[in-house]
Amino acid sequence: MTPADISPDTDLSPTQRSDFPKVAVLGLGLMGGSFIGALERRFPETASVGFDSDPEAAAQALELGLVDRLASSAQEAVAEADLVVLAMHVRGILETIPQVATMMRDDAVLLDLGSTKTAIVRALDQIPERLQAIGGHPMCGKRTSGVDGASADMYRGRVFVLTPSRRTRPETLERLLNLLRALEMRPVVLEPEHHDQVVAYISHLPHFLPIPLLNATDAAGDSKTWELAAGGFRAAAGGLDSNPAMWEDILLTNRAAVAQALRALRAQADRGVELLESGNDDDLLRWFRDAQELYQQRLG
Amino acid sequence: MTPADISPDTDLSPTQRSDFPKVAVLGLGLMGGSFIGALERRFPETASVGFDSDPEAAAQALELGLVDRLASSAQEAVAEADLVVLAMHVRGILETIPQVATMMRDDAVLLDLGSTKTAIVRALDQIPERLQAIGGHPMCGKRTSGVDGASADMYRGRVFVLTPSRRTRPETLERLLNLLRALEMRPVVLEPEHHDQVVAYISHLPHFLPIPLLNATDAAGDSKTWELAAGGFRAAAGGLDSNPAMWEDILLTNRAAVAQALRALRAQADRGVELLESGNDDDLLRWFRDAQELYQQRLG
Repeated sequence: MTPADISPDTDLSPTQRSDFPKVAVLGLGLMGGSFIGALERRFPETASVGFDSDPEAAAQALELGLVDRLASSAQEAVAEADLVVLAMHVRGILETIPQVATMMRDDAVLLDLGSTKTAIVRALDQIPERLQAIGGHPMCGKRTSGVDGASADMYRGRVFVLTPSRRTRPETLERLLNLLRALEMRPVVLEPEHHDQVVAYISHLPHFLPIPLLNATDAAGDSKTWELAAGGFRAAAGGLDSNPAMWEDILLTNRAAVAQALRALRAQADRGVELLESGNDDDLLRWFRDAQELYQQRLG
Repeated sequence: MTPADISPDTDLSPTQRSDFPKVAVLGLGLMGGSFIGALERRFPETASVGFDSDPEAAAQALELGLVDRLASSAQEAVAEADLVVLAMHVRGILETIPQVATMMRDDAVLLDLGSTKTAIVRALDQIPERLQAIGGHPMCGKRTSGVDGASADMYRGRVFVLTPSRRTRPETLERLLNLLRALEMRPVVLEPEHHDQVVAYISHLPHFLPIPLLNATDAAGDSKTWELAAGGFRAAAGGLDSNPAMWEDILLTNRAAVAQALRALRAQADRGVELLESGNDDDLLRWFRDAQELYQQRLG
């Protein structure tokens, strides 16, 4: 990218170089494409190279100007890089970590963008000491996937969680924090287990909740039910269809935290059943209104 | 409305009169406005009159051409009507039924569009024998409210549940079925209790599920949780804010069925917890995939 591509609405200083002159991205989907696109826009002199096992996705990332050039293999992509970004689904990242660790140059930094962090950070802990590695998770909340939805703006102003590993020296963390701030992201440093507990509530539980909802509705065994189901039910259950491969990896790599969140939901559902069956109007309405207030207070 | 207002894409016969030459609507919001708009478009010679306790909503319904004229009171609106449509929230309908029943002319038909039907049909059962009355519920699945969202097209092709009362003679039901079919709605006749059980699953449970979701998340007591919550969580919990007055009435008038649906959801959540904690990948993935298939099969 050339300086002319820099959006005129940026008020950043015109530094043209980041701390990572050469960056490789493996996985050119929504997240990898958006991340390298943001980096290229802010630091146009970065030499960026991408690789994706799907040649069409790779070609599209190039065409969209998100990445400077494509590599014909992961090995070629990462060989010279100062920063290697893994942007596949979680199980793909787990498989790739030990492989790319043998290909990277000394002191290069490995960053992943996977949706769950505990298993990944445990894998990063194991890579050779000659390398640096840290987990990352940009919180974008998009339900789409694929590079066609990628944009250099997607993570602007968003929280980007960093989860250090045994291979994260303090100065490596500092370099990453500086990079994310320069990209106008909001870095938050968490233990990987803590990250996984939080996202179990705010991301995984809402995503998987349509499963018991659909199953409960189906188990009622009433032929009229589906005939009457209108837009509201479709909207509530519809997210289940989006990006199932990504969500399978999340389900398999964050079971304990998702189970805990689902148990907590059940306890709160018990409270609802109790209030509905108690016959006390005021308590029932307060349950509803308090939740609306909580939403407004926390998310409104 | 004049015949020129009829949409050119309608392939109905050009009959200009329905079985109900004079129609009154009390409550000119999304539902009442859309219903009378659909009736006027199909039968332009219908004399329609509307009343709403909010003069602005009433004026807007007139301006949008949904209704021919406005009345200055409920009494004035219903006095001459062959069909009186009650389109307020449930508790407003329950209060209004005995009042309008004293104002309506002999053999006129009272139809309501309330979201729950058992309490309303029990009230319709009690009106004088000189009148006819039937419960109705068009399934639109819109999360908005207010007459500015109303449209003559909103219920086209949608299921419209009819719940007969003790004041529904067979020929009254037949007249309503014919009217709804002429308006290109899909009438489904159900007992009011059956309707309320079905909508508890497909409408009320999805709407109230954000309450235990928010409460469980809040109860986790983690300061990072809300900081990280992104669009996905907002989307899952956001419906809670829409049209709270309507939903309060639903909550208060359909407790038993909502409690039953919530209990059923809990049982299915238990199954999820069990699978998450069992450590069996295949069973866990099957749980997820079966629900996706169920969604596709029933709603896709």
